[in-house]
Amino acid sequence: MQSKLPGDQASIFAEMTGLAVEHNALNLSQGFPGFSPDTKLIDLVSQAMRDGHNQYAPPAGHLRLREKISELIADLRGKTYDPENEINLTVGASEALYVAITAFVHPGDEVIVLKPAFDSYEPTIKLQGATPVTVQLEAPYLQIDWNAVANAVTSKTRMIIINNPHNPSGMVFKDSDLKQLEAIVRDTDILILSDEVYEHMVFDGRVYRSAAYYPGIAERALITASFGKTFHTTGWKMGYCLAPKDLMREFRKVHQNLVFSIHHPTQIALAQYLEEPKHYLGLSKFYQTKRDTFLNALNQSRFTWTPAEGAYFQIMDYSAITDEPAVDFAKRLTREHKLASIPVSVFNVNHRDDHLLRFCFAKKEKDLLKAAEILNSI
Amino acid sequence: MQSKLPGDQASIFAEMTGLAVEHNALNLSQGFPGFSPDTKLIDLVSQAMRDGHNQYAPPAGHLRLREKISELIADLRGKTYDPENEINLTVGASEALYVAITAFVHPGDEVIVLKPAFDSYEPTIKLQGATPVTVQLEAPYLQIDWNAVANAVTSKTRMIIINNPHNPSGMVFKDSDLKQLEAIVRDTDILILSDEVYEHMVFDGRVYRSAAYYPGIAERALITASFGKTFHTTGWKMGYCLAPKDLMREFRKVHQNLVFSIHHPTQIALAQYLEEPKHYLGLSKFYQTKRDTFLNALNQSRFTWTPAEGAYFQIMDYSAITDEPAVDFAKRLTREHKLASIPVSVFNVNHRDDHLLRFCFAKKEKDLLKAAEILNSI
Ligand SMILES: CSCCC(=O)C(=O)O
Ligand SMILES: CSCCC(=O)C(=O)O
Repeated sequence: MQSKLPGDQASIFAEMTGLAVEHNALNLSQGFPGFSPDTKLIDLVSQAMRDGHNQYAPPAGHLRLREKISELIADLRGKTYDPENEINLTVGASEALYVAITAFVHPGDEVIVLKPAFDSYEPTIKLQGATPVTVQLEAPYLQIDWNAVANAVTSKTRMIIINNPHNPSGMVFKDSDLKQLEAIVRDTDILILSDEVYEHMVFDGRVYRSAAYYPGIAERALITASFGKTFHTTGWKMGYCLAPKDLMREFRKVHQNLVFSIHHPTQIALAQYLEEPKHYLGLSKFYQTKRDTFLNALNQSRFTWTPAEGAYFQIMDYSAITDEPAVDFAKRLTREHKLASIPVSVFNVNHRDDHLLRFCFAKKEKDLLKAAEILNSI
Repeated sequence: MQSKLPGDQASIFAEMTGLAVEHNALNLSQGFPGFSPDTKLIDLVSQAMRDGHNQYAPPAGHLRLREKISELIADLRGKTYDPENEINLTVGASEALYVAITAFVHPGDEVIVLKPAFDSYEPTIKLQGATPVTVQLEAPYLQIDWNAVANAVTSKTRMIIINNPHNPSGMVFKDSDLKQLEAIVRDTDILILSDEVYEHMVFDGRVYRSAAYYPGIAERALITASFGKTFHTTGWKMGYCLAPKDLMREFRKVHQNLVFSIHHPTQIALAQYLEEPKHYLGLSKFYQTKRDTFLNALNQSRFTWTPAEGAYFQIMDYSAITDEPAVDFAKRLTREHKLASIPVSVFNVNHRDDHLLRFCFAKKEKDLLKAAEILNSI
């Protein structure tokens, strides 16, 4: 039997979390909050189940939730998305990414991916019979060489995938980044898939700019977003996709055959929860404090870093400590020092190894201090 | 922009449910229970959220739930599936079907589909660049012509999809059906995708036989199942897939890139709920009573039918009433008589119209009696 994804392994996130559990290690590997969502949100979900919202939701999602999302976006991104035709709830941003690629990428197409990159993009492109065309950034991956991106464009380029704020580097795109992207796609048919799941986590006074702000991008963009990241509920798998009507029509054809609809009671609850807009604000400050708690406590360490600009990941250079490959070092750190991280090499072209580990700082203060203590001792 | 699913429309289920809501009609169209899940199950989900199970589950699913599923299957189907390597939780059976097709069907392959068929199979096959090869059953679709299936097999046949008990007809496969299928695939590489979401609803003393019972099928079968159908929670989107280890390995490669993992608190709750096996038993009796309530009340009607053998759908022939196309009649019934159903023609080859409507009888007794009253008056 011929595999459609030959050579693919179990997800690095599942692997490192598994190793962390096995060795009873502090888990700063997989990106998930080490704390609970608002009990008010939990209570609203419980109430929605008791109120009988337990059968299929509409495939596009609960309309009132789409309306609330539309209002938020108008507030935050200065652009209007029509709840009826331009917003779709999805099983986390994961499903949104998968559907966006599936609906538009044809066999033989090329899709440009900036590396390091989240690990689902490339297999999904390959499953369409298309080719990922990768552009490797230079460590610590805080700058994009847009000439390299422009040079990667061919007549076969169907889509460019961006991720802003960026996982694993913590980079936040600058206005000039998005303007250069806008110039590259002008007068082409290239679509933009903008993975914006960390949109509410941007540090040191930076201004966040969604792809939605740039008319030359927004007209051709599928934007994916996540409630899991924003409300500390990654295990609830609640996300959504924004796109102009013509693109959304094709997106929905795939989505309705894939999952039909998503978890109904949570949609009812989120629509109610979002009546108070304060809930999704303040996340930048919250996570900047966490980042700083972690970095300030690393005063004895031989790791080096540039502080993350956004998202909830900090990458750290360990070249001063060892020249072990990142995968080996990350595993040894888990087994021997009881601290799990993600080796950044797995996200690079040909697993290029820049001797970097990624630590998720969406953790309780005591866990961040404990992690720093471990890292200081190495 | 070239569509990957040209001509596809919004799902008939969403359309008819939408029309039912718009016209304040009794909704016997889309297949979902008109009653609530056990409050105990709801309470367990609420508790799992309060207990902090709100971050990513493992991609394959919560291990304890996989173990419980394994025990149930050993009980019910006389076959052992290894929880570690042969079971995977999915976003409803929908995602399981999509992933099973995506993981194994290559461009240029053929997949045999018995019509009438659930509407997600064919678009999913087409999205792989493969060709659905359809075998049309004769109304009321309670017999399969296995010679026709055997004749549809070519060197390109990669998979045969079966659905047992069958939606929309209510057919339950006989032992002889599965033996004939087993003979067809012997000494071939053909996979079987067996959609068994209505497995717990089989009437009039029939013995249900899963694909898992037949070694020559089970060795090559992906079986999809649904907690939504069994526990009245279609809106929670909880299903799973069973397959031998080698097939499951490929299934997981797609699943982890598609949704990564599924709703975590519900998995914790289901694992606890299933500690008491009685919960999933008795469903055949429960739904047979509903079917009979509905059919017995139709004593004045000009519709004709053969009672459903399983699942929760009854198809009805309206040729004695009108020769309107089924789509038109179903819509008119919704608008003018306030009763929504599904026109069976949409599931047939070239929408062949046998003048049949499908009614979902997973409804409260009073709603079934009201529906019968409406149908008696037509
Ligand atoms: C969906 S898997 C894990 C979460 C994540 O995005 C990450 O750790 O990078
Ligand atoms: C997933 S859509 C609706 C449910 C169903 O299976 C049906 O009505 O046939």
